[in-house]
Amino acid sequence: MKNIIVGLLGFGNVGSGFAAILKENMNQITNTLGCSIIIKKVLVRNLAKYKNAPIPEELFTTNADEIITDPEIDIVVELIGGIRPAYDYIKKALEHHKHVVTANKAVIALYGRELFDLADKSCVSIKFEGSVGGGIPIIATLTKSLAANKIEEIVGIINGTTNYILTRMEESGMNFEDALSEAQAKGFAEANPTSDIEGEDAAYKLAILTHVAFGVEVSPGEIPYIGIRQISEKEIAYAKQLGYKIKLLATVRRNNGSLDIHVHPTLVPFEHPLASVNYENNALYIKGSAVGELMLYGKGAGSLPTGSAVISDVMEAAGIIQNRIQTKNSFASRYQFTPKAISSGASAYYIRLQVTDQPGVLGSITTAFGRNGVSLESVVQRGRGGSSVPLIFVTHETPWDKLETALEEIKKLNSVEEVASILMVHKQSQ
Amino acid sequence: MKNIIVGLLGFGNVGSGFAAILKENMNQITNTLGCSIIIKKVLVRNLAKYKNAPIPEELFTTNADEIITDPEIDIVVELIGGIRPAYDYIKKALEHHKHVVTANKAVIALYGRELFDLADKSCVSIKFEGSVGGGIPIIATLTKSLAANKIEEIVGIINGTTNYILTRMEESGMNFEDALSEAQAKGFAEANPTSDIEGEDAAYKLAILTHVAFGVEVSPGEIPYIGIRQISEKEIAYAKQLGYKIKLLATVRRNNGSLDIHVHPTLVPFEHPLASVNYENNALYIKGSAVGELMLYGKGAGSLPTGSAVISDVMEAAGIIQNRIQTKNSFASRYQFTPKAISSGASAYYIRLQVTDQPGVLGSITTAFGRNGVSLESVVQRGRGGSSVPLIFVTHETPWDKLETALEEIKKLNSVEEVASILMVHKQSQ
Repeated sequence: MKNIIVGLLGFGNVGSGFAAILKENMNQITNTLGCSIIIKKVLVRNLAKYKNAPIPEELFTTNADEIITDPEIDIVVELIGGIRPAYDYIKKALEHHKHVVTANKAVIALYGRELFDLADKSCVSIKFEGSVGGGIPIIATLTKSLAANKIEEIVGIINGTTNYILTRMEESGMNFEDALSEAQAKGFAEANPTSDIEGEDAAYKLAILTHVAFGVEVSPGEIPYIGIRQISEKEIAYAKQLGYKIKLLATVRRNNGSLDIHVHPTLVPFEHPLASVNYENNALYIKGSAVGELMLYGKGAGSLPTGSAVISDVMEAAGIIQNRIQTKNSFASRYQFTPKAISSGASAYYIRLQVTDQPGVLGSITTAFGRNGVSLESVVQRGRGGSSVPLIFVTHETPWDKLETALEEIKKLNSVEEVASILMVHKQSQ
Repeated sequence: MKNIIVGLLGFGNVGSGFAAILKENMNQITNTLGCSIIIKKVLVRNLAKYKNAPIPEELFTTNADEIITDPEIDIVVELIGGIRPAYDYIKKALEHHKHVVTANKAVIALYGRELFDLADKSCVSIKFEGSVGGGIPIIATLTKSLAANKIEEIVGIINGTTNYILTRMEESGMNFEDALSEAQAKGFAEANPTSDIEGEDAAYKLAILTHVAFGVEVSPGEIPYIGIRQISEKEIAYAKQLGYKIKLLATVRRNNGSLDIHVHPTLVPFEHPLASVNYENNALYIKGSAVGELMLYGKGAGSLPTGSAVISDVMEAAGIIQNRIQTKNSFASRYQFTPKAISSGASAYYIRLQVTDQPGVLGSITTAFGRNGVSLESVVQRGRGGSSVPLIFVTHETPWDKLETALEEIKKLNSVEEVASILMVHKQSQ
């Protein structure tokens, strides 16, 4: 059987992990496939940096076309990240009938549909297991193991940086800034952590999951997202007293023909499996029509975990090449689901108000909630007397616009100083 | 593209779930595969029972050969369970060049090697995702998503009956017998629960996992297993006070070229993800050389979850048939791992002694442990004065034979009334 020839675009964190795993487990991979996987060329920006790399110096090139247009190369593995030039390289590689494996969340979230169609047109495959959840086999599970399920809901902790920060705040009582600094020192947060912290990174990944699980293309910009920068150690302590952990959840679910989708800091009950997902770990909680509830948990990033996912994709592409299989990359045609609407949907909410403790304050607030159709599950008052007493409300499931109207009214009440916090509450679906 | 014709052996719990999912999601399945899956015949024992079944009466037969030898049938789906005649049917089907999908743990655990080789010889595939962990995609994850990993360890909660019982004992304080009765009433335990309760069911599943993940054939009878019948509500309460839950864990790991394997009630620290796996749920905790730690969680049994796994196998076999792919079913050739020894291995242990509280009793016990090379992590004495006081020891990692010798000595001490409990303690691997 002919060996499979790979060209690598990028030799950073994931690229070097990919090469290391390939070398370390060459025998097992060869025995499984019945052929070897051979790296022929590696695109880098600066050759001088790779004089002492663990692969031969002459493999490195600064010219992408040497890889993309080489007729001998079967699979192009794109591990540069970012949108350009990665997107152009992937597109050109597909046009040259190369199979493509990538871990690039931005390109797949923004251009997935176009690239899947292009791959179908070129009769090649495009694989992207590493783009969501690092080493967690979420794409394979959704597309293959759950292929006979109608996916009802996916709830994920899919950003390791924010989960690390929230975990450290919760276990040590430290504030957000200190937890962020620690995460940066330990390599769990980037120097510029904005995209992670603000929830944007999770929105990109959620767009991919939505495309794969429902066949619905949602651009990351259409997904309502809120990050964790405003979460105080005090909020985490309040939530804990009520029996919850605060997690940044990415959620997408069917709702009577519509699609609810959002990234939002959310209270998760202690006993829910997502509550025990700590530090930089990721997890995906899936509800399928046949399988029921399924959760996948693991390392959502890192050189070797993501490298592991990339190699599993390369091995699958190798099988496709050897067996001359016609693949179908498009998802829309599988599920044929066109949502009536795409919106944030209804949720239970946790609202913390800071109020002046005066007779009647609670009554006027609950009246305002009731008048706007927001029904309350519980009210907790901490401390008593004087100004700036916290009042915490947990609502039943409420559409966002009703809550917003109620809070506008409540803000105008004399004794209400501040709407200090609005978080979602994750209710265990039955 | 030609449709895929399936013959079903058995129409019980999983068989009817399979048919229901197939019907419910026919469009999605057809769109994904590019062809339909059609049930041509269903083997049952008693035709009269299926007069009002959700599939046409004329599909049922009592003659297995009508399915196994029908040249039109592509895939034989075996869902009878038990060893015979299931094993004979599977063998004959493979000999007739049928692809086989089964959820039969007993047949795969006992005859896997032989059947995988036979499938290779017949140039067909045999799939068994449903045989371990119900709807959890553990076989696909081990064989494909982690194909480039050396698996280091698998720790599983793979028996729903015992996990349900332990969860109910822990949360309500009820005793074993009451929890078992409740599990039976709710359909989580069989009328004859022996195989589940004693750990035998878990040993069968562990044998399959060991074969798939390490390429090593271990017969279920060679796996040391201990069940949960002897676990009292008192033990669960003691463990809880120490920060642990008691779970029936199935464990297999590499240990310096040897393989440690066992099924044993085990203390799991609260913060470990396996501790939050409750009720009838299953979970598999995997350590891979590249992916690090990965956990899969879900329904380990049931008509629809297992049916979901069976259909994913049928869909994969359909792809193999359509694309005329040569599959390789044997695992031994992939991993080429021959363990130096297969044994229970070392573990940390929780030992509860009942002693008469006399001066010097603790000293003579700890001396006996020390003399036999059993090093202690902690000692807890509950209550004081009088007879039958519990003394709880947690050891560091210890080979079983050393512990056994120490306990033989300790039993002979005057003040020691009973070695009341020996459980394993799960240490988080680093």
